[in-house]
Amino acid sequence: MADYTKMWTDLGLNLDNHDALLANLGGAYQSIFMTQENRPAGMGYFDFVMSEAHGLRIQELREEQEAGRKIIGSFCVFVPEEIVLAAGCTSVGLCSGADFAQEEVEKVLPRNTCSLIKSFFGFSLGKVCPYMEVSDLIVGENTCDGKKKAFETFKEMVPNFYQMDMPQNKAPMGRKLLTHEYKAFLAKLEEMTGKKISKKDLQEGIAIVNAKRAALSRLAILRAADPCPISGLDALLINQIAFLDNPARFTEKLNALCDELDVLVKEKKGAIAEKAPRVIISGCPMAIPNWKVPAVIEAAGAVIVGEESCIGERGQRNATDDSAETLDGLIDAVVDRYFKIDCAVFTPNQERVEHIKEMTKNYNADGVIHYGLQFCQPYIMESFSVEKTLEKDGISVLRLETDYSQEDMGQLSTRVEAFVEIIK
Amino acid sequence: MADYTKMWTDLGLNLDNHDALLANLGGAYQSIFMTQENRPAGMGYFDFVMSEAHGLRIQELREEQEAGRKIIGSFCVFVPEEIVLAAGCTSVGLCSGADFAQEEVEKVLPRNTCSLIKSFFGFSLGKVCPYMEVSDLIVGENTCDGKKKAFETFKEMVPNFYQMDMPQNKAPMGRKLLTHEYKAFLAKLEEMTGKKISKKDLQEGIAIVNAKRAALSRLAILRAADPCPISGLDALLINQIAFLDNPARFTEKLNALCDELDVLVKEKKGAIAEKAPRVIISGCPMAIPNWKVPAVIEAAGAVIVGEESCIGERGQRNATDDSAETLDGLIDAVVDRYFKIDCAVFTPNQERVEHIKEMTKNYNADGVIHYGLQFCQPYIMESFSVEKTLEKDGISVLRLETDYSQEDMGQLSTRVEAFVEIIK
Ligand code: SF4
Ligand code: SF4
Ligand code: SF4
Ligand code: SF4
Repeated sequence: MADYTKMWTDLGLNLDNHDALLANLGGAYQSIFMTQENRPAGMGYFDFVMSEAHGLRIQELREEQEAGRKIIGSFCVFVPEEIVLAAGCTSVGLCSGADFAQEEVEKVLPRNTCSLIKSFFGFSLGKVCPYMEVSDLIVGENTCDGKKKAFETFKEMVPNFYQMDMPQNKAPMGRKLLTHEYKAFLAKLEEMTGKKISKKDLQEGIAIVNAKRAALSRLAILRAADPCPISGLDALLINQIAFLDNPARFTEKLNALCDELDVLVKEKKGAIAEKAPRVIISGCPMAIPNWKVPAVIEAAGAVIVGEESCIGERGQRNATDDSAETLDGLIDAVVDRYFKIDCAVFTPNQERVEHIKEMTKNYNADGVIHYGLQFCQPYIMESFSVEKTLEKDGISVLRLETDYSQEDMGQLSTRVEAFVEIIK
Repeated sequence: MADYTKMWTDLGLNLDNHDALLANLGGAYQSIFMTQENRPAGMGYFDFVMSEAHGLRIQELREEQEAGRKIIGSFCVFVPEEIVLAAGCTSVGLCSGADFAQEEVEKVLPRNTCSLIKSFFGFSLGKVCPYMEVSDLIVGENTCDGKKKAFETFKEMVPNFYQMDMPQNKAPMGRKLLTHEYKAFLAKLEEMTGKKISKKDLQEGIAIVNAKRAALSRLAILRAADPCPISGLDALLINQIAFLDNPARFTEKLNALCDELDVLVKEKKGAIAEKAPRVIISGCPMAIPNWKVPAVIEAAGAVIVGEESCIGERGQRNATDDSAETLDGLIDAVVDRYFKIDCAVFTPNQERVEHIKEMTKNYNADGVIHYGLQFCQPYIMESFSVEKTLEKDGISVLRLETDYSQEDMGQLSTRVEAFVEIIK
């Protein structure tokens, strides 16, 4: 790996902290990902991206910046990448998947805050996230109470914070609000870049994102096969990388991997043994390097065949219609597409459980593991009715509540193993 | 006390559970309220209301129902009583202040839910709250994640549930949403009652509520005196009863009490000794019979001189302008008034800390105790910045996080006593 010390210093990273994080991350990656057997050859690209996530990719982003592009960081799939691309900007996900600087974090946030929020505070306070530091604009949204209120403190910590309001339901007034906010966001990007967004710009943005989502859907569908041609861990990794990598290149590499998987499926070659118990994981998003629960599930001999998650199918399904004749029409189409995201911050959110059922059927799953981050009220509250509804349909559910610590590994393994026994 | 057994049975209460709750409530009331010395004579009325809260007052509500009035129950001060009264209906608060049926509750709600939400679930599951059972309509609102998501389950448990959407910020789109929701609520009440609301109806509703709020403000201001003419516990009780009692009678009785307090202040007679350390309590609402923290504070020798709470000044300050010429104009005035409520579910919510400062000054307080219910993300998150801002102004702050159990009484007492030592 090249020496990026100067770049990291320029970005204002704390090198000692950053070294510690990278060492941790590298160790986890080795033991969780590189020990898997029968990985498709196409995973080589994604291993490479991961190994260069803090190196080459950041260098690329800085080169883009030098060429005049702005980098837009965000914490939620409601920040529309189509519009970011239309403005000639690059979108990066800032959701964070590891504890860091916890003592510092608990000085500014309640202990009873979900790990995801604590994590991006820790990454910021510890100065370890190059994506955060390279971002020209950081977009926070009024989704859950936790993020909404934490952003009030966070925006004092980072320059260039931008707040996006969000509806709480899918009624016509909610749709109006989302449209209003997307237009305000578009105007903000125009102001930052000094460039008017045209209908053609937005059409191009939509095309790039639609192609990425189509490739992710292709991957999703290939996992319906038994034996499954790719592990759930690798598929999750690809979904995580979708938030960091250059979208066009990512799409190309993912399609190449899918070509390989097509052949494996035909030949009935699996990354995981045939007849392994099949699990859908559903709930809170899993950001890099939050691989704990999937690792436990697959270590228990099951295979994860789908993620009902924002880093997964909830965030990536549904294309944006690009047929409108005007810019406003295209913005409406973007709103239409995003308005379908069935995040638990909405009430009611009946679509989500329907989607979980659909996924269970489409990917021939034997059960659903609901993954809730401790103190996440939207998802953990919703998990009660999700469980009830699915079990009424004869679908087995295991509800897990965890955080980013490793302390509950033993307990998680025991519960997951028992569940896998039941569904197999 | 008369025998209300038949009424309670008719309402569908579980008599055994209800007896247990009443015994508890009565015991707490005796030991917390009736042991206070130097109470103003006018408290007699409020003691009476409390003793008949499940008796005479419910009988009145049922008589109102027989005469055709509808009873509207709600959990939030954003449900506008002006409009309820304009529709010829009666408003009652359903916020609940005691644990009940906890085992049943934890089957449908996460353990990490605030006590207030658990409490109204417990009251409903245990069939012990006559206000809930007598309500013709129960209004839930999309305020915090906890309530918003819990209502999805709650509405399956109670008939006649009505959901009100809420904005998350005070921008123009938020104001539009609140206006839209108030108009929808008004239409809903018209549909229920079969009666069109006129401009005059709303003006009358506004007049009744303004008079009630004016009386509560009068009480608030009288507490600026040293010695304080009324204990914080008694003042809180009055604020709690404001959500249950007939508003016109309540106003009359409160004004009579304030006449008495006027005299006491002139004569420098206090319910609490002169020079007692003076505290503002700020944070989550305290519903009946949630008197734990105020009891601890006043037992420590301090006097509570103001509640920055929805059951207190946050919920009751600001009159509604009744000068508009049209019904729509009056509705706008109602929205104006409610839009000023600085609840922590809004972001940003800078007005709240300014109001706390103002109260500290107006009521000559020596310190602020921030009261957060465990797992309440809006208020506990906000308490960090509230503390920082107040301390920058030289105002001492104690942040407490608690629930409805009695287990932390010892620990609370120790912390509050230490704080009272510091500020005195
Ligand atoms: S779970 Fe909800 S808040 Fe989180 S990224 Fe997804 S849409 Fe956004
Ligand atoms: S996991 Fe839950 S609480 Fe945490 S940021 Fe996501 S929606 Fe909010
Ligand atoms: S604290 Fe907020 S949600 Fe609770 S009653 Fe007050 S305004 Fe409503
Ligand atoms: S105390 Fe907090 S979490 Fe509980 S209902 Fe009120 S605002 Fe919601």
